[in-house]
Amino acid sequence: MPLDEVELRGARLKVPASLGDLFSDDHYERTAHALGKAYRDVVRGFRGEFENPPDLVAFPKDESEIEVVLSWAEAEGAAVIPFGGGTSVVGGVEARLGDRPVVSMDLRRLDRVLEVDAESLAARIQAGATGPGLEDQLREHGLTLRHFPQSFEYSTLGGWVATRAGGHFATLYTHIDDLVESVRAITPRGTWESRRLPGSGAGPSPDRALIGSEGILGVIAEAWVRVRPRPQFKTSCGVEFDDFLAAAGAVREISQSGLYPSNCRLLDALEADTTGAGSGEKHLLVLGFESPHLPVDEPMRLALEIARHHGGDPGDTRASGPTGRNRVDMSRSRPIGPESESGGAVESWRGAFLLAPYLRDTFVACGVLSETFETAITWDRFEEFHAETTAAVRAKVAEVCGVPAEGDGAHRVSCRFTHVYPDGPAPYFTVLAPAIRGGEVEQWDEIKAAAGEAVIEGGGTITHHHAVGRDHRPWYDRQRPAPFAAALRAAKAELDPAGMLNPGVLIDP
Amino acid sequence: MPLDEVELRGARLKVPASLGDLFSDDHYERTAHALGKAYRDVVRGFRGEFENPPDLVAFPKDESEIEVVLSWAEAEGAAVIPFGGGTSVVGGVEARLGDRPVVSMDLRRLDRVLEVDAESLAARIQAGATGPGLEDQLREHGLTLRHFPQSFEYSTLGGWVATRAGGHFATLYTHIDDLVESVRAITPRGTWESRRLPGSGAGPSPDRALIGSEGILGVIAEAWVRVRPRPQFKTSCGVEFDDFLAAAGAVREISQSGLYPSNCRLLDALEADTTGAGSGEKHLLVLGFESPHLPVDEPMRLALEIARHHGGDPGDTRASGPTGRNRVDMSRSRPIGPESESGGAVESWRGAFLLAPYLRDTFVACGVLSETFETAITWDRFEEFHAETTAAVRAKVAEVCGVPAEGDGAHRVSCRFTHVYPDGPAPYFTVLAPAIRGGEVEQWDEIKAAAGEAVIEGGGTITHHHAVGRDHRPWYDRQRPAPFAAALRAAKAELDPAGMLNPGVLIDP
Repeated sequence: MPLDEVELRGARLKVPASLGDLFSDDHYERTAHALGKAYRDVVRGFRGEFENPPDLVAFPKDESEIEVVLSWAEAEGAAVIPFGGGTSVVGGVEARLGDRPVVSMDLRRLDRVLEVDAESLAARIQAGATGPGLEDQLREHGLTLRHFPQSFEYSTLGGWVATRAGGHFATLYTHIDDLVESVRAITPRGTWESRRLPGSGAGPSPDRALIGSEGILGVIAEAWVRVRPRPQFKTSCGVEFDDFLAAAGAVREISQSGLYPSNCRLLDALEADTTGAGSGEKHLLVLGFESPHLPVDEPMRLALEIARHHGGDPGDTRASGPTGRNRVDMSRSRPIGPESESGGAVESWRGAFLLAPYLRDTFVACGVLSETFETAITWDRFEEFHAETTAAVRAKVAEVCGVPAEGDGAHRVSCRFTHVYPDGPAPYFTVLAPAIRGGEVEQWDEIKAAAGEAVIEGGGTITHHHAVGRDHRPWYDRQRPAPFAAALRAAKAELDPAGMLNPGVLIDP
Repeated sequence: MPLDEVELRGARLKVPASLGDLFSDDHYERTAHALGKAYRDVVRGFRGEFENPPDLVAFPKDESEIEVVLSWAEAEGAAVIPFGGGTSVVGGVEARLGDRPVVSMDLRRLDRVLEVDAESLAARIQAGATGPGLEDQLREHGLTLRHFPQSFEYSTLGGWVATRAGGHFATLYTHIDDLVESVRAITPRGTWESRRLPGSGAGPSPDRALIGSEGILGVIAEAWVRVRPRPQFKTSCGVEFDDFLAAAGAVREISQSGLYPSNCRLLDALEADTTGAGSGEKHLLVLGFESPHLPVDEPMRLALEIARHHGGDPGDTRASGPTGRNRVDMSRSRPIGPESESGGAVESWRGAFLLAPYLRDTFVACGVLSETFETAITWDRFEEFHAETTAAVRAKVAEVCGVPAEGDGAHRVSCRFTHVYPDGPAPYFTVLAPAIRGGEVEQWDEIKAAAGEAVIEGGGTITHHHAVGRDHRPWYDRQRPAPFAAALRAAKAELDPAGMLNPGVLIDP
């Protein structure tokens, strides 16, 4: 639907005359800040259904302007939703707040790398810096954050911290949590700034209290994050398996080996087929190691030995390094993804991984219902969890989309591991099914509910790195310890007595 | 002073008749639970000064008894101080509470490894299990937690979680935080239990909110922790340096290399001399790698290459493994320390490390004032921080102990790194000086204050792994973000409205 045909509810707030530069009630801006990027958002966007547009959009350019927006909104009784790249797939930026007026606070003007400490390998970066924006600035120093979520092109450092985003590294530095050295946030009751510390044992971590707070405690303004020199040594290899559980066993042993591969993604045969990384016959383990300074051939050799022991059939190992034959030019800026490598299955997977979010629009246009959900589970429960979750979701897809539950290829529920830990994997499920036109949102909601139910009943987390937002609330509420919820509610009431910051996310207003 | 000559304030609580097995007002128990293990505690203990004994000591044997103790104490208006091994060096278990009656809750009866998940490499362990106690139970499964604080013999899993204890691993798994999979705690408002998850992104981590809470939010009853097979491959090497900052440079490069040594302790020459690990002429870097399954020669080779590049002079590398010449018998139980290895400087350091806490008593008896303080700091600030902190503490020691500030060996302020991160080290300072008899506590307090001031002014954390307790409060209060303190206070008020749990620790009652 063309933008000028979109009808929005009238704005219930007026741009204050003295703050005209800071706020906008522009039709385009209100529309652009009304939804996230979940399938249910894209469907509604296609239909022109923007039920909950913000009344105003604010564009602060520094912390004092963040404070001005908060003060003004508090006085107006308005809610404020911090907005980074708007790539939430869990309703994290949509103002489902009934009659309460809403300001969407877009942080795009805070987009700078402010300081680089090349000795400690850390950088102070503003919350609104996007993936490519901050990588471009770090590249001038020969450094990189190497945090590459699928939303990399649009999403922001502040959004990553607020939602505990998952990134490039399959082991060790799986979440932005592990890369944060300190955080600075503006709360309605003052500035929350932690010290830059490599490690600490002084009380519960103040950073961990903000990381994952999804905008309900304060507006993240900047963070010191751990960066690193760009990798000079890289090696990758695709390993095929006939049996998925045998492949999972290989991943388990590798995750417990202390080798810490940077990439350790297992794609089941269906997922490998969907992404074009495989023929659909074999399960594919994508292994990679990288280092700024040191050769990585030996850890790859050991990891492949483990994979073979579990029945894996490794393809060619592709290596690049200062003396290698395929030296990669690290200085080249890339428009979408973090980096590209040439080479077979690994490259096919990487390309598909980076394109997946962009395909969502195409799927919607073609009438393909798509849903992804992700979790983490301990190894002892994985086999049963995987079987039961897949079965539950397939059954629900069959029911709501009117297709057979088994076998004819009319729908797909596939699985990959995005990250792995010594105690368990982070499985990521992709659902593709023929939508029944007109009922896409309801069909998606039912499938989402079946998935959430299966994940929580099976012992997983409702999200490993997509966040809770509003869409995951029913299951998050069952997952978290009740006294923790009470403590979080009390903490929020203390810092945000007006309950203005992203109400409805994580806890009830 | 003999126990029967110790005079304690009369107990202000009576053992409830119906709960006689649960509580004790025994003279020995009240004395034994009156103090921690800081120098100022040992001095007062020697003098028979037990100013703040608990009125009763409770020994719950399960969670229902923890709840009974909390309910009873709340009704009596009493405070409750959770007590693990009693090894706090920061006043964490001493009831400095004026007129308020106090129950010390000793968790020693909850000392079991309840479950072992050999597939996920995790174990469910009760809070009162001591280091040797839980390692003995894990050994039956061929597993180990490998968390070895200096207090290992007495301290407990619950105490480690409550205080964010630092352990064996110099990199990656530096704190118990990194080994916790889930926690179960009893709060006055219900049970706080998180799911066993290898990773999660569902809101701020509930575990991280409990880890480091030092008993103010709830009584930790048990935790699932990540364990591992006992290491079969081990290698260690001592590297000597003429220049301390060059050695620190080597540690920095190793910490940023991705090699992740299990041991990477740098001792300055004075510390090496004090511990008998060196001649006092050279600074000593103790490097170690270990693995349950894989050879570790290659990472050691690469680390030593880095050390040499910074002017280091490696001694002999000592290796043990299934095919090595020095295979270590892993099944042998050891009374004090986690493990022993034969071999020169490394072994000398290890022996001294494990004995140090035991020497505190001897030092007190000999009139030697001893103090240790520890922190973490980013690499860019380390050189200046180290120089200024050392100078400030030396000046204060000279002033309060009446010795020259420089040079004659009458006192020592030495430094080692206990843990290292890519962005900075965790320096640990040891102060030895001739105490002026009768004024030891006041002298120690002044030196502690000078150290705290230097650490906070220099940008460090008031504690990397000794916790905050009561002794570190003045500097912790300056370190933490004010809105975080407000949030923590609100969370505590919600869970513990009577303010009964370890009042005065972390925040004011």
